[in-house]
Amino acid sequence: MSSRMAAEVAEQPLAVRLTLESLLPARPEIRQLAQGRRQVLFAARGSSDNAAVYGRYLLETRAGMLGSLLSPSVATHYRSRLDLSDALVVCVSQSGATTEIVDTQAWASTNGAATLAVTNVEGSPLAEYADLALITQAGPELAVPATKTYLTQLVAMAVLGTALAPEPWVLDAELDRVPAEVDRLVHDPQGVDAAVAALRDAAYAVVSGRGLMMGTALETALKLEETCLRPVRGYSYADLRHGPISVVTSGMTAVLVAAPDGPLLEPMVELAGDLAGRGATVVGIGGDPAFADACAVHVPGPELPEALAPLGAIVPAQLVVEGLARALGLDPDNPRGLAKVTATDPSTPKENA
Amino acid sequence: MSSRMAAEVAEQPLAVRLTLESLLPARPEIRQLAQGRRQVLFAARGSSDNAAVYGRYLLETRAGMLGSLLSPSVATHYRSRLDLSDALVVCVSQSGATTEIVDTQAWASTNGAATLAVTNVEGSPLAEYADLALITQAGPELAVPATKTYLTQLVAMAVLGTALAPEPWVLDAELDRVPAEVDRLVHDPQGVDAAVAALRDAAYAVVSGRGLMMGTALETALKLEETCLRPVRGYSYADLRHGPISVVTSGMTAVLVAAPDGPLLEPMVELAGDLAGRGATVVGIGGDPAFADACAVHVPGPELPEALAPLGAIVPAQLVVEGLARALGLDPDNPRGLAKVTATDPSTPKENA
Repeated sequence: MSSRMAAEVAEQPLAVRLTLESLLPARPEIRQLAQGRRQVLFAARGSSDNAAVYGRYLLETRAGMLGSLLSPSVATHYRSRLDLSDALVVCVSQSGATTEIVDTQAWASTNGAATLAVTNVEGSPLAEYADLALITQAGPELAVPATKTYLTQLVAMAVLGTALAPEPWVLDAELDRVPAEVDRLVHDPQGVDAAVAALRDAAYAVVSGRGLMMGTALETALKLEETCLRPVRGYSYADLRHGPISVVTSGMTAVLVAAPDGPLLEPMVELAGDLAGRGATVVGIGGDPAFADACAVHVPGPELPEALAPLGAIVPAQLVVEGLARALGLDPDNPRGLAKVTATDPSTPKENA
Repeated sequence: MSSRMAAEVAEQPLAVRLTLESLLPARPEIRQLAQGRRQVLFAARGSSDNAAVYGRYLLETRAGMLGSLLSPSVATHYRSRLDLSDALVVCVSQSGATTEIVDTQAWASTNGAATLAVTNVEGSPLAEYADLALITQAGPELAVPATKTYLTQLVAMAVLGTALAPEPWVLDAELDRVPAEVDRLVHDPQGVDAAVAALRDAAYAVVSGRGLMMGTALETALKLEETCLRPVRGYSYADLRHGPISVVTSGMTAVLVAAPDGPLLEPMVELAGDLAGRGATVVGIGGDPAFADACAVHVPGPELPEALAPLGAIVPAQLVVEGLARALGLDPDNPRGLAKVTATDPSTPKENA
């Protein structure tokens, strides 16, 4: 019954603690590497890219430093020459061996950037060739869906963001609380079954979040899509409001992720009300009591300030994804294996197998 | 029968010509404004954001200048202080009155950026407060889906990209051909009916493109979703390959947009073959004969080099969207009006009304 994915979700409190212990002492080196650099550029794909989205918001909101996402094709296919002498380029890859990201790192270095690798594999090409490598301590991950490697990448982003902040230690007391919060969310989940039921019956699902929680929304959407083999779209709050909200109707489930505080909480509460008014079943993850009240189904999130909330909020999202995969009769550990089966006859998916 | 949207699509050859005539003389001023600035940051939402995606790739591949997308919430909600003294911030808004973008421009200016506005409305707040305004010459747009305002934003991006290139004039001969190419694509469309049929019968659709054509893919997806009230997802080539390709099955239609040349054409041909192999109906827009061969349905695109291909390729995409809306019994000019009707009974959409 218990999946490898569920086991790896449960290993996260340890993975987070080990990664914090390993990476926090590197903050002075990170500061030194970034000396004289005016901005951070991230290069990543998939879940790693979603971790980078958190990194960028953390830098821009807490470190006063511009953070942007590079387009790897500019490096790998167009082979552009850009002046990156004012940039710290952060390449994020679980394996450290994704050719596209390894090549982008080499390109960045050639174009004058300082390079920082975030990877789970010591000795990987990404780690070897970077000016500095932050090795996450997730241990081996066997299930196909990234869980503990993603969460430990978020830890690396928190280390990076605080390292470059004017007062690097200012979030340390809250960082210390993260492993315990992750542990609490893993072992005392609430609302997960109701969220699974709301998603299992949905004709279509969207996921939305904003600002520091945007990466969590994108990662939740990606995991729902990859693990449950359903089209799920992750929207920024603004992009959803700017047009696609017109396709929101009854029969749709909207998953909203929110931090318990911060300037974007109130807009998220309003969005929950708007989506419910259009007939969507709103599943809320995190937020505060007002946010919970605005959602049909509520899954509590971490008691961590907005800047660190993504390090906890992904845990209940992972539990929902794992539970939904099982409810749909899919193998959470290797959803694509079953995808090949369902593809031959997509109109009769196995349910509750 | 003929929609306002179709009429505005047909007004684009003139709108493009007038915009080129109006903006090309501003290139020296743009160069001067960007003097000493090392990068361009775009701020936009919706279709304007998709135009900015083209602008960023054009700058990075043709002007050797870093181009990135700002997150407006960093300005409007987090009110971060960032050092933008090395940046040219380009705000794109058809109306020039979107509060979020106007506020982001003011924030950028306060933080040291030079500001350039791209808008269709002279005297709008965005135009008034920018250091320099590029006013597109689309004329009034009455249909809800942006067509000529989007295409003239692409023209403004081409003017910006060439203005900041080492040799600003190097694409001028091809720029001169754009109005005639747009005219040809408007008045001699091919393959549009077959593409409409492939999309009308699809359970789900994805759109993908890469590099300079990425913005076209995102805009096509947004228009399909907004105008035809169906969930449609626009993916980058890499993001699609990196996981979500696992949800591609028979019954799905994949729309791929490609330029007729450039380093990403071959990967797009391969992607078309892969998606077809997974059972998807592949609709190709643009590309070369090999790309056309790899697609089940082919809609020819412009005969323009990759750097300018987006200025033509959006036209057949617009015609497909307009035709699909009518085929679904929706009003292309005001799809959301009908959305309220379909929302009450989503299981019985009007077809072929």
